[in-house]
Amino acid sequence: MPETIPPLRPPERLLLGPGPSMVPPRVYEALSKPIVGHLDPFLFEVVEEVRRLLQMVFGTANPFTIAVSGTGSSGMEAAVANFVEPGDKVAVFAAGYFCDRISEMAQRHGGSVVRFEKGWGETFGDDEAREFILREKPQVVAYVQAETSTGAFQPGKAICDAAHQAGAVVIADCVTSLGGMPVKVDETGIDIAYSCTQKGLGCPPGMAPITVSPRALEKLNARKTPVQAWYMDLKLLDAYYNGPRRYHHTASATMFYGLREALAIIAEEGIENRWERHRANHLAFVSGIQALGLRMHVAEGRRLWTLNTPKVPEGVDDGKVRKRLLEEHGIEIAGGFGPLAGKVFRIGLMGHSSTQANVARILETLESALKAEGYRR
Amino acid sequence: MPETIPPLRPPERLLLGPGPSMVPPRVYEALSKPIVGHLDPFLFEVVEEVRRLLQMVFGTANPFTIAVSGTGSSGMEAAVANFVEPGDKVAVFAAGYFCDRISEMAQRHGGSVVRFEKGWGETFGDDEAREFILREKPQVVAYVQAETSTGAFQPGKAICDAAHQAGAVVIADCVTSLGGMPVKVDETGIDIAYSCTQKGLGCPPGMAPITVSPRALEKLNARKTPVQAWYMDLKLLDAYYNGPRRYHHTASATMFYGLREALAIIAEEGIENRWERHRANHLAFVSGIQALGLRMHVAEGRRLWTLNTPKVPEGVDDGKVRKRLLEEHGIEIAGGFGPLAGKVFRIGLMGHSSTQANVARILETLESALKAEGYRR
Repeated sequence: MPETIPPLRPPERLLLGPGPSMVPPRVYEALSKPIVGHLDPFLFEVVEEVRRLLQMVFGTANPFTIAVSGTGSSGMEAAVANFVEPGDKVAVFAAGYFCDRISEMAQRHGGSVVRFEKGWGETFGDDEAREFILREKPQVVAYVQAETSTGAFQPGKAICDAAHQAGAVVIADCVTSLGGMPVKVDETGIDIAYSCTQKGLGCPPGMAPITVSPRALEKLNARKTPVQAWYMDLKLLDAYYNGPRRYHHTASATMFYGLREALAIIAEEGIENRWERHRANHLAFVSGIQALGLRMHVAEGRRLWTLNTPKVPEGVDDGKVRKRLLEEHGIEIAGGFGPLAGKVFRIGLMGHSSTQANVARILETLESALKAEGYRR
Repeated sequence: MPETIPPLRPPERLLLGPGPSMVPPRVYEALSKPIVGHLDPFLFEVVEEVRRLLQMVFGTANPFTIAVSGTGSSGMEAAVANFVEPGDKVAVFAAGYFCDRISEMAQRHGGSVVRFEKGWGETFGDDEAREFILREKPQVVAYVQAETSTGAFQPGKAICDAAHQAGAVVIADCVTSLGGMPVKVDETGIDIAYSCTQKGLGCPPGMAPITVSPRALEKLNARKTPVQAWYMDLKLLDAYYNGPRRYHHTASATMFYGLREALAIIAEEGIENRWERHRANHLAFVSGIQALGLRMHVAEGRRLWTLNTPKVPEGVDDGKVRKRLLEEHGIEIAGGFGPLAGKVFRIGLMGHSSTQANVARILETLESALKAEGYRR
């Protein structure tokens, strides 16, 4: 029985949470362009453009640089499923939710996980990181460059150097850094970096950029067991995207168009200019937050430029503040969870959302919502 | 260094291959609507609408009816990864490529696979299907309702009845049937059915609708080992989409908008009317093909209404014909592969592509391309 369905009418949100961030009009336009098939020569032209532009934002010359057809979490699973072989020892730097998720995935994929644990929002120093790796002698090292649950940035040079000394490959989660702050895959020595499209890149969610170093590919080619996750098997994806264009799955032209356009915008801005924009807006936000009498959860120098975690003032219910922002102003921010539940706000200024105007808007509306919830300096 | 990237200019294709099919303007419009976050109340409204509309096209009352954030192949892997526990015996009806892929995935996920094999394009009769299942006594039975590599439809009632008698759950691949011909999950007795968005539904690729029966959920809840594929773990997806809205991954508002709109169009057409449209256009195509002197690969009564596989006439190079259609007319069709390489064309008339005008257009252009390649009746 035919029925009539009312038109789709999404609310207009200002997205200032931990992602997705705002999408530029040009990307929306690309998403509505006519699709082509998954083996169409035009799609592979776009795949090649996306590869070149992703290499630029990742800071890598890795020929194996693609986008997995899934969200950021599928990028994490592709990294873990392909590079953690059953029995591998996996050393994880654990100071937030996404390190826990890597640990969970590594266990599911047959890895034996050892963890260097710290409180959520802390980071690891060079010496202690090196010592941990050289003591544990793992086959795989994993760390989160940009911890979305805490707002902390983890430098990676010492980790990668020690891992390579120990003969391990390094997986780095760059979900909340890519496109908003320097990832520098090659300079840092990261072997496998993955990210998402909906944060620093300014595209809707749906794909997971991933890049793999030649030394990691050697490990992959030497695997004794097949990767259990067929959909994320990077050897099969290699044959589809990089090699003989052998059919694997039906890549979405729509998502590739969106990602291509988001990356084109970045190339036109210039990646260094973009980093500087994120840094400046982050610093302006922090000044404003401190002027309101709030403190930042993460130590200075280790804060993400893309995602800010001011502490919730004593006695304020963060859920009520977030509800006011959403319902009265149409602004999405997020709260903390796990050990940080009720303790921090998570406020993103990433990609197209990182503007001076948004810094002013969120500071003003946050102040009024905090006051309405009883906050006094 | 900033650079200027030329605008994205996709070619206008008429998509008459095995998918993706043409996307209606209303769906493209939905894809460019402003996104919301993955925990936004509005997104969950859309998720609920999508659930209800998917239940209608699947023909099921299963409350567990969602869309996985990946392409159709991720739906296949979600089905296999969750319902094939290591050591399970998996009985596969194998007469085409996608049965082989299910077998491959089942092996990777620790299943012990037994196959009832036939030539590509053949189907299985009720008695022989029943006998195979009752002899093998598997824990899981898998069959492909609509085999995209061959164009054959496999009825499932006898398979499902025998499987349930043997205590097995049934996985059915409905990638090329959903939205274009009756899937009838509940009436057939299918426990786990999955599909894609880019064929009968008329949306770009990017999501995998999946529905799970209460009896299959019991098997899932009784699993002794965790599902290795975290990204496709249906218990975690259940807690996100069906239960307490617990964060799992960042679902794409964009893809949900597109799917919602594609399903709304189906509801407005009426699912039975839509099936009839596909049936009528399929029959018109077959008449036209026979008038050209070509024969169909699949036996009458077992042909898909969505995907036609006429045989390539003796002495004609199918690759050259396809190249002419693409380059001279902007029409995408596909060839056969595996044992059917060079032997069949695969011509889709599905979703928005299934029109009388497209039947006329493909018959006319195919005739002229065949003649240009030396074909004489």
